[in-house]
Amino acid sequence: MDAALKRELLDKDRKRVWHPFTQMKDYAEQDHLLIEKAEGLYLYDADGNRYYDTVSSWWVNVHGHGHPRIKQAIARQLEETDHIMFSGFTHRPGIELADKLIGIVPPGLGKVFYSDNGSTAVEVALKMSFQYWRHVGRPEKAKFAFLEHSYHGDTLGAVSVGGVDLFHATFRPLLFDAHRVPSPDVRDWADGRPTAEAAEASVAAAIEAVRRLFEASADEIAGIIVEPMIQAAGSMRMHPAAYLAQLRELCTRYDVHLIADEIAVGFGRTGTMFACEQAGVTPDLLCLSKGLTAGMMPLAATLCTDKIYEAFYDDYETLKTFFHGHSFTGNPLACAVALESLRIFEDERVMDRVRTTSEALRARLPRFGEFSRHIANVRQLGLVAAFDLYEDAPSRRAYPFTERRGFKLYLEALREGLILRPLGDTIYYWLPHCTTVEQLDDIVERTCRVLERLGYR
Amino acid sequence: MDAALKRELLDKDRKRVWHPFTQMKDYAEQDHLLIEKAEGLYLYDADGNRYYDTVSSWWVNVHGHGHPRIKQAIARQLEETDHIMFSGFTHRPGIELADKLIGIVPPGLGKVFYSDNGSTAVEVALKMSFQYWRHVGRPEKAKFAFLEHSYHGDTLGAVSVGGVDLFHATFRPLLFDAHRVPSPDVRDWADGRPTAEAAEASVAAAIEAVRRLFEASADEIAGIIVEPMIQAAGSMRMHPAAYLAQLRELCTRYDVHLIADEIAVGFGRTGTMFACEQAGVTPDLLCLSKGLTAGMMPLAATLCTDKIYEAFYDDYETLKTFFHGHSFTGNPLACAVALESLRIFEDERVMDRVRTTSEALRARLPRFGEFSRHIANVRQLGLVAAFDLYEDAPSRRAYPFTERRGFKLYLEALREGLILRPLGDTIYYWLPHCTTVEQLDDIVERTCRVLERLGYR
Ligand SMILES: Cc1ncc(COP(=O)(O)O)c(C=O)c1O
Ligand SMILES: Cc1ncc(COP(=O)(O)O)c(C=O)c1O
Repeated sequence: MDAALKRELLDKDRKRVWHPFTQMKDYAEQDHLLIEKAEGLYLYDADGNRYYDTVSSWWVNVHGHGHPRIKQAIARQLEETDHIMFSGFTHRPGIELADKLIGIVPPGLGKVFYSDNGSTAVEVALKMSFQYWRHVGRPEKAKFAFLEHSYHGDTLGAVSVGGVDLFHATFRPLLFDAHRVPSPDVRDWADGRPTAEAAEASVAAAIEAVRRLFEASADEIAGIIVEPMIQAAGSMRMHPAAYLAQLRELCTRYDVHLIADEIAVGFGRTGTMFACEQAGVTPDLLCLSKGLTAGMMPLAATLCTDKIYEAFYDDYETLKTFFHGHSFTGNPLACAVALESLRIFEDERVMDRVRTTSEALRARLPRFGEFSRHIANVRQLGLVAAFDLYEDAPSRRAYPFTERRGFKLYLEALREGLILRPLGDTIYYWLPHCTTVEQLDDIVERTCRVLERLGYR
Repeated sequence: MDAALKRELLDKDRKRVWHPFTQMKDYAEQDHLLIEKAEGLYLYDADGNRYYDTVSSWWVNVHGHGHPRIKQAIARQLEETDHIMFSGFTHRPGIELADKLIGIVPPGLGKVFYSDNGSTAVEVALKMSFQYWRHVGRPEKAKFAFLEHSYHGDTLGAVSVGGVDLFHATFRPLLFDAHRVPSPDVRDWADGRPTAEAAEASVAAAIEAVRRLFEASADEIAGIIVEPMIQAAGSMRMHPAAYLAQLRELCTRYDVHLIADEIAVGFGRTGTMFACEQAGVTPDLLCLSKGLTAGMMPLAATLCTDKIYEAFYDDYETLKTFFHGHSFTGNPLACAVALESLRIFEDERVMDRVRTTSEALRARLPRFGEFSRHIANVRQLGLVAAFDLYEDAPSRRAYPFTERRGFKLYLEALREGLILRPLGDTIYYWLPHCTTVEQLDDIVERTCRVLERLGYR
């Protein structure tokens, strides 16, 4: 792109665009990075510089950017229908995708309700659960429980079950009341895995808190929502699968819906197609988005059991309809893309590759041991790895908030051709499934150079 | 499509798909209509039957289905970037679209914040308004006002400012408290326009209620949200532009944000590019979606004044960041489509055509006079026309709710090759901009045949 056009665009950006989750003053002196091309694992800026998209463009991209089969699927769908409404009407990609999803998610889910993004998928789950209990004659089951450090989206219903105070506290007066339970996140790691004692302790304490809550209040609780295996936005906190298994038992015993938010972790990111598989658990409601379209465009789905569906199925006059819908519900383009992505998973044996890459990623974690003065909690699951920066790692003394170490590292990483988007002082990879072992090696090397330059050795 | 495939798909639909805003039992005996092709103003089902999409696929479609320039825009964008994250990064279609939007909306709006659908555009507006007052030292301005019969989406924040009890009442315990003010909707119409007295009376009463509310409580009110000119989901209630003008004055006088939800009415539907233009009014926050992408795929934008933006612009450490964002914020495909749609508006002089078609639509309203025993409140604005079914129209005696006249009419209209989607007993057209006068004539004739067959003469 020529320099004048680049300048013009960046000036317009500064003048007209309010970027998400961004203190715009951070970009007073420097520009947003203008991306001109995306291909595979790489983004290219307006000057032709190449960057590794190690965060999968906010955890959405799956098969790499611009996968030819995805592009063809869009072109094909455009020859049939563009968007048509999904109430009273239906279409092949919407039907086939629903059918295919039911075939791959944990067994026991029966119905698919589409929406547009992760936040709406969560809102749908909350509203379905809430309304379900009214229909079965237990309207007093009207509250929700959520985990500390959890993130389920930014619409006010989703924020109400959010546990990241930095994002959520401001809006407290607009939120409904919900029960916060402790996070089962592990904080003692060895070779990227929780130590046995740390795992057991974190699960036991977190489960006991849920048990006490349910014991006291399950009569008033509709559901509990959880990000299985990784609390992503909450600084990539990971927990053992045993937590999910035991949580499922508690939910069954106390008749509380288990709502699994696999918006971030779904579609292979944690090494299994869905994170719930690692605990052999089926939730009552399952929220999907992001990777659903391989990261191409917005689409979401909330899956539920037939039992929940049937509580709404009645004569119209009983007013049991689930009155929820979005204009673009079941967008045929997005459904066609999602279907093609699932076919790519099969045809290209993507999960085999994910397993290989995940092992390679784990094998490379010891590299970060060189920085153990400032880095701790090196952890990994599937294509996700994370660690935390400290002023003094052995004693876990944090850097002062105002130092914004993560932000500085992000800027430095760009100079190294790496897109790292720290969450506070937590640095992480969230790799797309197309990552090769060679690319992984290069990414780790570059990361170490960045750490080195910033004086973290 | 061959019969076996059709049957298979419809069986899967019934088994796997939960459709939005639908009592699924309504489809126990009959199928959802399986659409196989969409072109211009027409949808085609699996048997090749053709239907007029007179509701623009839930009010989204603008230039007709499958517009070749829109398809090309998608193909072109796919050669550059698919989705990339919009935090820290930016891209040409996102920038150019923001710049173009600011150029066409009512003057005084400065910044564009993208999201994915109408509901999230509203949530963004509410959260921005709420947080703004905190930043300027007036945190007690934390409540919202909304209109009776209004609809702003289905996420819980949007539902909290919703005034359609059928949709919203169930969720009351999950909603924040808000002030409901009367609708300014006119109920006395002649030749599709409000009678002078009815217009004056409806505006005066509704404005007086707002004035009283603001007089008593403006200190606690952050903003008031309104669907300019047409309360669409609330049964296509229309109000005079004078209401908006006077509401703007009250908002300015009492320092309350005016939030205009042009998600349905924006992009030409009411005869002007934005409905606010008809009152010469600029809101503090403007919500756009649906027609933004010409109805192709999800995208939304919340526009605000520079004044609002600046209240968030500060050093990071002050924690004034607007912590809101969606994974697919500023999706480049959707932005490229939206840009192309705006270029089509210019190149094809779409608003000239809209004016012609709107006049033609108005000229045809007297046709419905033949059904004056059962039809009243024939009203029209731009490409939207509506009327209400009554058991006895002159006395406005309604049909019993349980008769579901609207639903029956929908089914009958399908047999006539017409997609009508009544809201309760309100029948309406929400025509795409590509509608020709010949097509309009055919649509009106078919509608009259349906009314005739159902015995409404
Ligand atoms: C005026 C208005 N606001 C908001 C919405 C919600 O938009 P979405 O369905 O995309 O969430 C709608 C949708 O019908 C609408 O008509
Ligand atoms: C676990 C989880 N839930 C929900 C969401 C919200 O999704 P969206 O950004 O599409 O609204 C996210 C997004 O980051 C997420 O990570």
